[in-house]
Amino acid sequence: MNILIKDTLAILYENGGYITKRTNICIKDKIIYAIGDIPEDFTPDEIIDGKNYLASTGLINCHTHSYMSLYRNFADDLSFDDWLFGKIDPLENRTTPDDAYWGAVLSCAEMIKTGTTTFTDMHMFKNMTAKAADDCGMRAVISRGLCGEDESGGGARRLDEAFEEIENFKDNDRISFMLAPHAIYTCNTEYLKKIIGLAIGENLPLNIHLSETRYEVSQALEKYNMTPTKYLDSLGFFEQKTLAAHCVHLSDEDMEILKRNNVSVAANPISNLKLGNGVAPVPKLLDMGVNICIGTDSAASNNSLNLFRDMNFTALIHKGVNEKAQCVSAEDVYRFATVNGAKALSLDDTGELKVGKKADIILLDLNSPSLNPHNNLVSALSYSANGSETDTVIIDGKIVMRKKELLTIDEEKLYFNVNKIMERLSK
Amino acid sequence: MNILIKDTLAILYENGGYITKRTNICIKDKIIYAIGDIPEDFTPDEIIDGKNYLASTGLINCHTHSYMSLYRNFADDLSFDDWLFGKIDPLENRTTPDDAYWGAVLSCAEMIKTGTTTFTDMHMFKNMTAKAADDCGMRAVISRGLCGEDESGGGARRLDEAFEEIENFKDNDRISFMLAPHAIYTCNTEYLKKIIGLAIGENLPLNIHLSETRYEVSQALEKYNMTPTKYLDSLGFFEQKTLAAHCVHLSDEDMEILKRNNVSVAANPISNLKLGNGVAPVPKLLDMGVNICIGTDSAASNNSLNLFRDMNFTALIHKGVNEKAQCVSAEDVYRFATVNGAKALSLDDTGELKVGKKADIILLDLNSPSLNPHNNLVSALSYSANGSETDTVIIDGKIVMRKKELLTIDEEKLYFNVNKIMERLSK
Repeated sequence: MNILIKDTLAILYENGGYITKRTNICIKDKIIYAIGDIPEDFTPDEIIDGKNYLASTGLINCHTHSYMSLYRNFADDLSFDDWLFGKIDPLENRTTPDDAYWGAVLSCAEMIKTGTTTFTDMHMFKNMTAKAADDCGMRAVISRGLCGEDESGGGARRLDEAFEEIENFKDNDRISFMLAPHAIYTCNTEYLKKIIGLAIGENLPLNIHLSETRYEVSQALEKYNMTPTKYLDSLGFFEQKTLAAHCVHLSDEDMEILKRNNVSVAANPISNLKLGNGVAPVPKLLDMGVNICIGTDSAASNNSLNLFRDMNFTALIHKGVNEKAQCVSAEDVYRFATVNGAKALSLDDTGELKVGKKADIILLDLNSPSLNPHNNLVSALSYSANGSETDTVIIDGKIVMRKKELLTIDEEKLYFNVNKIMERLSK
Repeated sequence: MNILIKDTLAILYENGGYITKRTNICIKDKIIYAIGDIPEDFTPDEIIDGKNYLASTGLINCHTHSYMSLYRNFADDLSFDDWLFGKIDPLENRTTPDDAYWGAVLSCAEMIKTGTTTFTDMHMFKNMTAKAADDCGMRAVISRGLCGEDESGGGARRLDEAFEEIENFKDNDRISFMLAPHAIYTCNTEYLKKIIGLAIGENLPLNIHLSETRYEVSQALEKYNMTPTKYLDSLGFFEQKTLAAHCVHLSDEDMEILKRNNVSVAANPISNLKLGNGVAPVPKLLDMGVNICIGTDSAASNNSLNLFRDMNFTALIHKGVNEKAQCVSAEDVYRFATVNGAKALSLDDTGELKVGKKADIILLDLNSPSLNPHNNLVSALSYSANGSETDTVIIDGKIVMRKKELLTIDEEKLYFNVNKIMERLSK
C-alpha cells in the first residue's frame, strides 16, 4: 500500500543536526520512497493530512522483557532480592506461554501508544513474544535468555529452544534474532564459550546483561579476578557484535574495552534507579563515542514500557548527578532512542526518517500542551513529551495506530485477559 | 450542581494506608457529600458512570511559575547563567501581561489534562495568573515574587502590587494568596524583615526559594556566616507558616530547623536535575517527618507541568542515588502529591477523597496500558502512569474536563496564541 503524509512537520537529519521542516512523506509498500516533492510516479492509496502532526522516525526500545508487563506494579519498593526471589520468581514459575503472550501484547499496546515501533526482547517464552510482536505489527529483535551454570543440561535445552525459535520465524522480515547469554553470573565459562562459537558460526549478534549491580562486579572480581567486561573480553565475547544492557558499574578500562570493540550500550535509567543499582556513566561513554541506546527494561522494574519516560530520565539524571547542566543534550537523547538503537540491533534500514529506510514513522499531535509553543520540537521529545502525544503509528509501511486507536490490538479483550491472568498467578 | 460518580474504583485512605475500593461518590455543589451508599436526600443532576475509572483526589503542584510555559523547550542544555541571563531574562523583559495570561492558560491546560487540580504560583504577572486559573476553573494559591536588594524602591512597588492582587481576588474562594520573598539573594535583610512583619500582620503564609543551588549556600555563608535556612531562622522568618521550594543543599542543622518550625518543603526533582543543581535530601526529610510536597517548577526548567512525571522522578531518583530500593515508597509519593500539598498550601479542605472535603477529583481511564493489570493502582500512579490516563477532572464541584476534552479552555485558540506570542518574543 502507498501512503502519503501530506504537509507535515518532520524531524530530519541535515548537515550534522536535527531540524524540523514542513514537507511530504511518501511511503511505497514498506519503504520511505520520497520526502519533499511528491514524485510523479507515486499514487497514494491513503492520504494522511499531516498539518497538525510532528513526524518522527519511531522510537527503538533496546532492552525489555515484554511478557513481564503482567507483573507491572506488583512488587515495588523492595530490595533486589525480595523483589526477584520473593515476588517475581514465584509468579514467573506459574506463568504459562499463553499468559506470556498476553503480557507481551500488553507491552506492544503500551509501546505503540507511546511511539515505539521496534523493540528487543530477552528472556523466556520467545515464540510467544515473537508471535505477539508479529500479531501487533511491531518490529522486534528477539533473544531467548540463555542460562547454564551447571551440568544439569538446562543450558543445552535453552540453546535448542533458541534455535527452534529462530527457525520458526526465519521467513518473517519484521522479526530477527540475537543470541543472549543472560549474564556472566548465570552462565559458566564453558557455556559462554559455546554460545560465542555458535554466534560467530551462525552470524548472530550477542546480547547480555552487563555490570548491572555492584554485586555482579564484586562476584566477578572474586571468581575471575577480572571485571565482568574484562572477563567477557578475555573469552573473545566481543569479537562478535554485542549489545550490552545496563553497564552501570564500569571501570575506565571497561569503557575502553567496550569502545574498542564497538559494543553498543543500552542504558536503562529507570530500572537502574528503581532497583537501587545506581546511574550508568552515560556522559563518559558519550564522550568516548560509544554507541548508546535506551531500554526500558521490564515493567516489573520500570514500571512502564513508555520510552519517552526513559528519554526524559536520560536527558535529566546525568545533569543532576554530575551537577552539570550541559551534559547529555536533547539531541543526544533523541539519537540514542532512534538511530543508535537501530545500529545496536543491526537494523540499519530503520531509525531515520530518510528515503530508502523502512517506513517506521510516528505522528505526534502538535496540538498537545507539552509540544507548545513549538520552540524546539527535538527538545520537546526529550524533555517535555510524555508519549501520549503519539497519534498515529506506521510500522513497516502499515498503519498500526490511527487517531490514538490501536488497529492491531483488541484493547478490551487485552485488559480483561491480563487481569484474569494476574488474578490466577497471584493467588 | 450535584454529580454522582457511580460504581467507580476509588483511592481512599483507611486504617493508616491507601486502599482502592469500588464505591459511589456524591458531590453536592462544591463538596464531597457522600462516599459509599447514595443518601436518600441526594438527587444528582449529572451521573458519571464510574465503572472504567479510577477516582483519586486531584494532584497539587506546589511550585511553579505558570506564565513561563511560553518558554518551554526554548533554552535547554545550558549552564544556569547562560540559561537565565542569556536566554530566559531577555524573553521575560519583553513579555507583556497579556502574553503572560496565555502562558498561564497553557499551564492550566497541561495541568488539568494531567490530573492537577490545584497549583501554587510565584513570580510576576500575578493578576494574569490568577485570572487564568480562575477562567480555567482551577484552584490556585498565588504569590507575587518579591525582590528588594537595594534602595531603588522596586521592593516597595512589588509589595504594593502583591496587596493589590490580593484585594482584586479577595471574593474568589478558589484563589488564595501567600507572600513570597523570592530568595535570600534577591532580598536584603531589611526587606525580608518587612515582609515577615506584613505576613504575620495579615496572616499570610510565606513562600520562598531556599537552598536551590550550591552558590546560594556559599554566598550566604560568606555574607552572613550562616546557611540560608539558619539565616532565615535568625530573622524569625519561620515563625510564620512557610513553604520552602527546592531545599537541595541542606545541612543536618538546616533540616532540624525546617522540621522544628513545621516548614513544608516543595521538592522539584526535575528542575533540580535539569539545571544541574543536584538531588534534594528527600529520604532524610521524610524520615524526620517533614511535610514534603512536589512542584514542577516552570516549563523553562522542567519542561512540563505534568506532575505525574515529577511523581515518577520522586519515586525513583532517591532509590538510585542512594542505591537503596526501599526509600521513598509509591504511597509516600502519592501523599506528597496530594494531602501533603494541601497542607503546605493551607488548603485543609482539599487533597483527600473524603466526605466534607472540596470536590477536587480526577477520574483516570482504567483501560490504559500503564494501569494494567490492576495489580496496585497507588503504585501505578507513582510509577507507571504518565498523566495521560486522566479522563475527567472535577474542581470545586465543577467538571472542567470530560472524556479528555477541556471544557474551560479553547485549545485551538490557545496554541495559536502562544505560538504567535513566542514568534514575537524570540525575534
